[in-house]
Amino acid sequence: MEISNNTVAIIGGGVIGGGWAARFLLNGWTVNIYDPDPDAKRKIEAVIANARRSLPGLSDVAMTPEGRVVYCDSIAEAVTAANWIQESAPERLNVKHKILAEIQQYCRADAVIGSSTSGFKPSELQQGAKTPGQIMVCHPFNPVYLIPLVEVVGGENVDQDILQTASGVLSNLGMKPLIIRKEIDAHIADRLLEAVWREGLWLINDGIATTTEIDDAIRFGFGLRWAQMGLFETYRIAGGEAGMAHFIEQFGPCLKWPWTKLMDVPELTDELVKAIADQSDAQSGAHSIRELERIRDDNLVAMMRALKGQNWGAGALLNQYDADRKPSLNDVDIRAPIPTIDRTVPIDWLDYNGHMNESRYGQVFSDATDQFMEFIGVDADYMATGGSFFTVEAHIRYLSEMREGQKLGVRTHCLVAEGKKMHLFHKMFDSDGNLVSTGEYMLIHVSLKTRAASEPDAKIALKLAEISSFHQQLDLPDGVGRSVGAARR
Amino acid sequence: MEISNNTVAIIGGGVIGGGWAARFLLNGWTVNIYDPDPDAKRKIEAVIANARRSLPGLSDVAMTPEGRVVYCDSIAEAVTAANWIQESAPERLNVKHKILAEIQQYCRADAVIGSSTSGFKPSELQQGAKTPGQIMVCHPFNPVYLIPLVEVVGGENVDQDILQTASGVLSNLGMKPLIIRKEIDAHIADRLLEAVWREGLWLINDGIATTTEIDDAIRFGFGLRWAQMGLFETYRIAGGEAGMAHFIEQFGPCLKWPWTKLMDVPELTDELVKAIADQSDAQSGAHSIRELERIRDDNLVAMMRALKGQNWGAGALLNQYDADRKPSLNDVDIRAPIPTIDRTVPIDWLDYNGHMNESRYGQVFSDATDQFMEFIGVDADYMATGGSFFTVEAHIRYLSEMREGQKLGVRTHCLVAEGKKMHLFHKMFDSDGNLVSTGEYMLIHVSLKTRAASEPDAKIALKLAEISSFHQQLDLPDGVGRSVGAARR
Repeated sequence: MEISNNTVAIIGGGVIGGGWAARFLLNGWTVNIYDPDPDAKRKIEAVIANARRSLPGLSDVAMTPEGRVVYCDSIAEAVTAANWIQESAPERLNVKHKILAEIQQYCRADAVIGSSTSGFKPSELQQGAKTPGQIMVCHPFNPVYLIPLVEVVGGENVDQDILQTASGVLSNLGMKPLIIRKEIDAHIADRLLEAVWREGLWLINDGIATTTEIDDAIRFGFGLRWAQMGLFETYRIAGGEAGMAHFIEQFGPCLKWPWTKLMDVPELTDELVKAIADQSDAQSGAHSIRELERIRDDNLVAMMRALKGQNWGAGALLNQYDADRKPSLNDVDIRAPIPTIDRTVPIDWLDYNGHMNESRYGQVFSDATDQFMEFIGVDADYMATGGSFFTVEAHIRYLSEMREGQKLGVRTHCLVAEGKKMHLFHKMFDSDGNLVSTGEYMLIHVSLKTRAASEPDAKIALKLAEISSFHQQLDLPDGVGRSVGAARR
Repeated sequence: MEISNNTVAIIGGGVIGGGWAARFLLNGWTVNIYDPDPDAKRKIEAVIANARRSLPGLSDVAMTPEGRVVYCDSIAEAVTAANWIQESAPERLNVKHKILAEIQQYCRADAVIGSSTSGFKPSELQQGAKTPGQIMVCHPFNPVYLIPLVEVVGGENVDQDILQTASGVLSNLGMKPLIIRKEIDAHIADRLLEAVWREGLWLINDGIATTTEIDDAIRFGFGLRWAQMGLFETYRIAGGEAGMAHFIEQFGPCLKWPWTKLMDVPELTDELVKAIADQSDAQSGAHSIRELERIRDDNLVAMMRALKGQNWGAGALLNQYDADRKPSLNDVDIRAPIPTIDRTVPIDWLDYNGHMNESRYGQVFSDATDQFMEFIGVDADYMATGGSFFTVEAHIRYLSEMREGQKLGVRTHCLVAEGKKMHLFHKMFDSDGNLVSTGEYMLIHVSLKTRAASEPDAKIALKLAEISSFHQQLDLPDGVGRSVGAARR
């Protein structure tokens, strides 16, 4: 794919047009925007601000430097130099026809004209067009700057070269172009959504469930499965070694049962069952059911742990589970190094070497420091008053490997606690009591307001002094004060 | 909630019964299993093995020590001492009635009897029962050991105390009990699933899409949204500041359009629109639309980055995007410290102090080491031959804070490369060129087979020698050889 210039014309702002603008802009394109709404600029800038905040961090490499936004006064000005034109006008066919005609009066013959339409078929959009072949459906999903899916539907009259160009450009934007071979009202995803929407309306209408209950039934259940595998791959696993045809035969009878109010169902002919089974083999047959189970579980663990970091949905539930099981300082003998972490190595901490990644040792020690801080009273309430500890220096020794599912514990020795300084030495053990790592940390108490060093509250200082007075009577741990490579040079 | 003993009887193994067994077992319960299938033990052990691998790592604290599994020869033996009995027999009402009757011949009067039924209403299960009030639907989702949702449906005749006990036990297992107030065939989630399933069958039947295409339309699109917010909260955001009622009015007409083949739809009366809008306010009204957008985006970034670590679905797409943009050693001047990282701080790297968490500094340096290794030829192909570098020691200085969306870069100085040893010094800069952190790392070349130190391949050694010969002519960076707190004591 060759992109001679990189200029996109966004015709129609709003949430969808703004999302397209942001996606192109952050990938280095010049973005010409035309929207007659006098409030368009404010709305689009808000979407772009959201995108700037979230999209670049998805990458572990640098993105192309941002392009620039040009607000245009006419469709002509916006589209003349553009090699991509994205129409996101209201969902009325006569409006779209008028805009498409004006676009084609001025645009390049080789430009892609994509329509964000949720429902119209390309043949409907192309009706009466000067050059039907450059018009296609490119239907994105909100938020366009993050969700990768774009349904690309050209219909029978599309120029195949332009369709290929479109697909290449979308991939280059980090999106997932799903080329739909045969046009249909509302394409694919919105048909599935519409089915759920209709069933959901029935559930509310009949007083069975509220919006909260329906959303919870989704996000604590099959929503988690669908973020990584879809409907069919998930069911393939449920069918087990007996395969997809067996699964369909098993659940076929349900189609005649009142399991939904939406009762117009296709007949499960032998041909249809075979088609599904064959397609499922082509899709997932490279993996055994056992492998698919593990892939699914790994994805679920990683995503649910990610939601934990956001304290939302299934992640908030996991945090509650942990909170109910957190240790209390009352259960701890503070005269010895303090148990700050007892946990299992999760699947998502492994790296290409097949063991817990080195950065996760640092994460465990960071969590151990957090737990120690909580024990001495530096908790969320204390931080709300403006005090916290920041780490200024760390030294970690990696003494042995840890694997998925292994248990580990950290015992924390408070070496020094004087004024603003807190000097901790963490020892990490495996479940057999072998030392697997040490982490030596220097922290400084800070004011969260000034971000500068400050004295801790008297209550915190007292607790720290109590613990460190006990710990100073202990032997100095092996490795304190080491520098990298010291003994080896 | 009081749990006098913790014994569950699992009646019927298989994927669902096995999943229940694993969930209870790993939360410390005694698990009595009865399943007449001679192959049951093998199947259940496979599910428990999957659960042991994935579930404990979801927690950041220690779980209760595992309970024990007892394989029983009769329903009587399994249920007599149990305070929870979970029936996961085949989906045939007469079979379930027979099993439930046998359970109630022997079980405690205060035990919960949960049925895993996908479709039957509790009133159907309770028909003819000795004690209908202790029988309820507890419908879980595969994999039961990871997915939190359980639909709990008691119907009109359930004992409310036993229902409350059930809800408490499920929460204690880390699950999300969704109490369904009014019974209906297939409860809530399976009705939504059934609607999608029926529409999906039409799409395949009509040759519009394959199983792969339907799954991709889900997992690259709305599946990601639904893993964290459901249908209604997502649409509330789409409706913008104008609110949920406005959104429904806008999309109401679609219900009359052929956007699905499932055309039996409820009428959008004023009452129904108001009910939905009110429920949505109760659900999400605590957050403004702007706040909901950011919560959604934060969740999406965190989950998609989690999938990146698994190289699957939307995550695999992001990895491809990055791979297309990775630097090459040919573009790099190896006579100076080598640019190994250029990236943006993602949202999911922030902590309670509002800045990039200390462990992420270590992660960036770990990634910098990985990039350096790739530059010298220690890539996936080389590792497949059995060689790699393991980090043995690290020293990090935290010189200033980093915020979300800030750009950072790492420049890597190879201090020493001799035999098995590689001694690196990473400097992290912000986009203004300020030094924000340093990381000093000692690595040892290992055989991935023996996990012991070994000499690198000649080609690797040569490349390393070339770079380090240049770098040894550079000034020694400030901070090399520092130990924690050295200058401050």
